Amino acid sequence: MGLSKQKQKYIQSLHNKKYRNQYGVFLVEGQKSIHELLNSDFEIDEAFLTAEASESLGLKLNVTICKADEISKVSSFRSNSFGVLVVKMKENIPPDLNVKGWILVLDQINDPGNLGTIIRTADWYGVKHIVCSENTVEFYNPKVISSTMGSFSRITPYYADISSFLEQCSLPVYGAYLNGENVHRHQFPESGVLVIGSESHGIDRQLESLITRKITIPSFGKAESLNAGVATAILLDNISRG
Amino acid sequence: MGLSKQKQKYIQSLHNKKYRNQYGVFLVEGQKSIHELLNSDFEIDEAFLTAEASESLGLKLNVTICKADEISKVSSFRSNSFGVLVVKMKENIPPDLNVKGWILVLDQINDPGNLGTIIRTADWYGVKHIVCSENTVEFYNPKVISSTMGSFSRITPYYADISSFLEQCSLPVYGAYLNGENVHRHQFPESGVLVIGSESHGIDRQLESLITRKITIPSFGKAESLNAGVATAILLDNISRG
Repeated sequence: MGLSKQKQKYIQSLHNKKYRNQYGVFLVEGQKSIHELLNSDFEIDEAFLTAEASESLGLKLNVTICKADEISKVSSFRSNSFGVLVVKMKENIPPDLNVKGWILVLDQINDPGNLGTIIRTADWYGVKHIVCSENTVEFYNPKVISSTMGSFSRITPYYADISSFLEQCSLPVYGAYLNGENVHRHQFPESGVLVIGSESHGIDRQLESLITRKITIPSFGKAESLNAGVATAILLDNISRG
Repeated sequence: MGLSKQKQKYIQSLHNKKYRNQYGVFLVEGQKSIHELLNSDFEIDEAFLTAEASESLGLKLNVTICKADEISKVSSFRSNSFGVLVVKMKENIPPDLNVKGWILVLDQINDPGNLGTIIRTADWYGVKHIVCSENTVEFYNPKVISSTMGSFSRITPYYADISSFLEQCSLPVYGAYLNGENVHRHQFPESGVLVIGSESHGIDRQLESLITRKITIPSFGKAESLNAGVATAILLDNISRG
């Protein structure tokens, strides 16, 4: 038992996007995320757990029992006395537009913490699909995964060219702008697409013609803009009012 | 001209809370924050600027012209080719409760990025005063200051014992809970106090008797909670609707 040098190297390599893509797997670390993953439709490839964690979870297949310090060594957490799972990535397929609900589209969200917060907030509001531009930070980045507080397990990402996705999309497309319609005065439909751009560049200009409705969070003070995660949250809250 | 060894050490010491408090000053770094500071009622103690920055700002007093690499060396930014200001902290005095508007009360917000986002969002919604528990991260922490994107210059912090503050407060006191009244169905008054607790511990139990109204952001999905900055933003947006 215990962690072989080879497995240690393998897990450490998965902190790197190149190897995640090569093997088609990613890391889920710590008790909270692992618990949420077990209740999801993600498939576990291998589990590296402490004896206590393994017993509490009752996992049967591909479990290697490790010491807490072996796990901490391969984890991105400062200390991890629970475990690390190697989990298969989902297929990159577009969301079904016939299912009711809202789809979030992220254009160039670079910060892993921001993406994590957005995924967590999307999960709070029942959003199940997030479409990301190719230059948005990777969903399976360990920092993203851990900052979602388990919500990653209920969201399906789709990385694609946003233009092509929106061109094929029959739903109303809302975009977050600084000069759009006041969201406090708008009635939102049951289904739609919400496009969020980066804080520094906004939504890519080339997408503008594909946005059916520009919306804006009204300001009552002097800040020039809002954090992208905060703006997404406020918009989803307004949308959830109908 | 240029930065003396002594001044270099002094500025570097101000990255440390102990020395900020000892001297009663803090650092404002980079073009965006410095521009916003000049339009505020904060008082500059000393300015360390590149020649170009100094010319563009037209500051007259206590300016030391430095090379960009001298400034980068004493800045918390990876690179800073504009400048660093040493600015006097404001007096720690309670907000005037007779002025109309909302006051934000933060109970144990530990993360500098979270506090920065909260300050920026508060400024968006026109909040001018934030009361912080003694165990909330320091307003004048350089990471907090820079993550507010200049909004720190329009907010006055007051660090105090929250119980004592709320006991003396005649305004309605709203608290963010997971089991309160649905904010989508509530009409908010023009003035009030909004108490936000930490993500891990919520609002301190000892404060519960001082909260007049427990409010909750309705959930439509499965996330167990929201990030503290996100929750604050959604609540301020709901409050701003009246």
